[in-house]
Amino acid sequence: MCHLLDSARRSIYPVNPSVSEILGLATYSSVADIPGSIDLAVIAVYAPQVPAVLRECVQKRVKAAVIISAGFAETGEQGQKLQAEVVNIARQGGIRFIGPNSMGHVDALSQLSTLAWLEGITSGSVSVISQSGNYGELIVRHGMASGIGFSKFISTGNEADLHLEDYLEYLAQDESTRIIALYIEGLREGRRFLQLAKETTARKPIIAVKAGGTSASARAARSHTGALAGSDAVYTAAFKQAGVMRVNDNHELCDVAIALLTQPLPRNNRVAILTIGGGPGVVASEACEREGLAVATLSSSTIEKLDTCLPSRWSHGNPVDVAGMTVRKRAFLFASLWALMEDENVDAVLFQLPVILNAKRLSTILGFDDEAARAFQDMQEENLSRTAQKAKELGKPVFIVTLISDAETSAFLRRVGIPAYPSPHRVARVLHHLVWYRRYLDAAAV
Amino acid sequence: MCHLLDSARRSIYPVNPSVSEILGLATYSSVADIPGSIDLAVIAVYAPQVPAVLRECVQKRVKAAVIISAGFAETGEQGQKLQAEVVNIARQGGIRFIGPNSMGHVDALSQLSTLAWLEGITSGSVSVISQSGNYGELIVRHGMASGIGFSKFISTGNEADLHLEDYLEYLAQDESTRIIALYIEGLREGRRFLQLAKETTARKPIIAVKAGGTSASARAARSHTGALAGSDAVYTAAFKQAGVMRVNDNHELCDVAIALLTQPLPRNNRVAILTIGGGPGVVASEACEREGLAVATLSSSTIEKLDTCLPSRWSHGNPVDVAGMTVRKRAFLFASLWALMEDENVDAVLFQLPVILNAKRLSTILGFDDEAARAFQDMQEENLSRTAQKAKELGKPVFIVTLISDAETSAFLRRVGIPAYPSPHRVARVLHHLVWYRRYLDAAAV
Repeated sequence: MCHLLDSARRSIYPVNPSVSEILGLATYSSVADIPGSIDLAVIAVYAPQVPAVLRECVQKRVKAAVIISAGFAETGEQGQKLQAEVVNIARQGGIRFIGPNSMGHVDALSQLSTLAWLEGITSGSVSVISQSGNYGELIVRHGMASGIGFSKFISTGNEADLHLEDYLEYLAQDESTRIIALYIEGLREGRRFLQLAKETTARKPIIAVKAGGTSASARAARSHTGALAGSDAVYTAAFKQAGVMRVNDNHELCDVAIALLTQPLPRNNRVAILTIGGGPGVVASEACEREGLAVATLSSSTIEKLDTCLPSRWSHGNPVDVAGMTVRKRAFLFASLWALMEDENVDAVLFQLPVILNAKRLSTILGFDDEAARAFQDMQEENLSRTAQKAKELGKPVFIVTLISDAETSAFLRRVGIPAYPSPHRVARVLHHLVWYRRYLDAAAV
Repeated sequence: MCHLLDSARRSIYPVNPSVSEILGLATYSSVADIPGSIDLAVIAVYAPQVPAVLRECVQKRVKAAVIISAGFAETGEQGQKLQAEVVNIARQGGIRFIGPNSMGHVDALSQLSTLAWLEGITSGSVSVISQSGNYGELIVRHGMASGIGFSKFISTGNEADLHLEDYLEYLAQDESTRIIALYIEGLREGRRFLQLAKETTARKPIIAVKAGGTSASARAARSHTGALAGSDAVYTAAFKQAGVMRVNDNHELCDVAIALLTQPLPRNNRVAILTIGGGPGVVASEACEREGLAVATLSSSTIEKLDTCLPSRWSHGNPVDVAGMTVRKRAFLFASLWALMEDENVDAVLFQLPVILNAKRLSTILGFDDEAARAFQDMQEENLSRTAQKAKELGKPVFIVTLISDAETSAFLRRVGIPAYPSPHRVARVLHHLVWYRRYLDAAAV
């Protein structure tokens, strides 16, 4: 509740028959006693008391509720009956509700939160619908740590009234939502989901974690929210048809979201790799090919351009190994990067070189004095900004593999809008999704 | 060279005909001019000058060299001839050498380093043989950041004289090496490798990144160190026969190494999952099953034990969802964890709950005062230490998924020796390797 309180800008009426004050607010002994009208009821009482509370809400003409209380359909027959009773009261009384067994919901823009956790969500344009409150939390926490901001968050709970499909329909038309992230255990309206998702992905991407695809995980999903996970193959086919990007976990979900937020979709799957050292180039090539990407064949004019930027011993092919070019000559790297971006045979570039924007480390590693380090840093920052700009203009995404990372560099790359990942495998996985989504959209447009 | 200088405890003789001083050390104009005897020559001159320098070394009765210089077999026919000449001089003169085109080598224990990078390697028991200096650097850097210490490091370069197999033979009997990590592009003595690896893995694990398994990556490997990558299927079969754990990249390599350094090998593949929230439990179950692990069926006596530790609404099955048990009752969690570890149907435990050892965050999140936070922290630390001890006694590995992580907690877990990973997928992958290796050893012992 304290987060509801923190959110301010609205009146809070705590209802509790046993105590007179909660967190400094005077309580009411029943919903009926509340003076003003009520926009939203947040119900977190013991499950068997929910019907009575809901009846009070009906009398008070409340139109919306979030039922946090657990102990309904997910617990067995007794709970199913109780849930049916709650649905009945709400239907007859004209109340729509989230839950029960929900963890709450958030609108980061208006700072309304009915969650008991997630203090201070960074506001942004990713919205989350999660059939697990805890998993939703993992998506949001990892997302924030990766620099992602959020718009709406809904922990759907048992979906006794409002379904995942209802929230999806809302977010599809919500202007503050650019990307929709889903955690799905089982859909209640498969056909409607398919139709909605199809319409939505034509305008904004949907990224989904679908769990319960193996036997023990399906069993666990059933006892969790009572959802029937259904055949994994059916979900795979439905997602494919509807343009939904399916990811393995919250980490992959955030990796893809960051790319979608900052980079254009690649036209095709041909990747140029700019790397330091042969080994990392070999590993990056393999990572790309294993994800269905092609290691681009560079055009001869690009090879010629690179000959003017790189030491003569460079690899003369893709991956472009700069062959130990000294850090001091780093400015030429950007010329090489841009040459690759401009190649008509290249759809995306993976930049796998140490980017160091931390002045102290520059001094230590390169032996630069303060002034030289600052100048070097300025040069790098300017060139990185230009790179981000170029990616947009050319419609070719650029990804950095941060072989060596520090907080300062990560922060700068985020500011500029170039996504950075710790390994080429993660970039290749992200590109796999982006290429797939682009092809889906192209095919759908025909 | 500065790292060689840093290493102290030995005499350094810089040789350079053009300058009289390098980094404060008087130079010699030729190897012959050096007064004392020489244990190791580090050669980093322009490639065409290497034969002359090596001849000087022969005359000075040097027995070992590291040839950093590039521009040999990896560059084409001319370079191949030069390399053959160098090998010839060394053979006739009785010199064994690393390289050419090597980045150098390290012995962290005696603090000898011929690398131009990697200042201050943490000493420990993992040794690395890498057919890419840069990729070796990635292994060591990521390893150090993950808390791994290193013993020996060899960047093999072109392997004109000493081969990867020679280093492997040495490390197999090296008492300060507990784990051998390999980056392989192509083996020069496949049969010998197989035999050596088989003998070695019976005593100490070998973890290998083998790159070049796809067409573009094989091409890149060829131009990098002249290695013929060979058929990927052949390598896969050889590694299987020899008990070598094959990983995708430096991240997975370090994940496995940490587990091997701290945990016993599991007897079999049955995993118990202790988790907060249904969703994370479903995802963890799926991750385990996809890696060939089984979600263990708990014995009835374990279920009874858990009934005494957990709230009545717990999932009553595996994954064990503590169903929102408050953090304050966290002591009971350890009783649950130990009950799972003691179950005869369980071979390994995945503990997926927030572990918070940072006093300030405990105060904020739980509203504890300083004293209460400290007591809570002491309780957690004591129980984690006991858990690590129990894992050893029972021969059952324990892994923590750090859903929420902070530096203090990571540091403590490292000290205690419980490996922590940010996602269940990474734990499942590590366990996959450990189960495989254990089965390999069991089969080999029959």
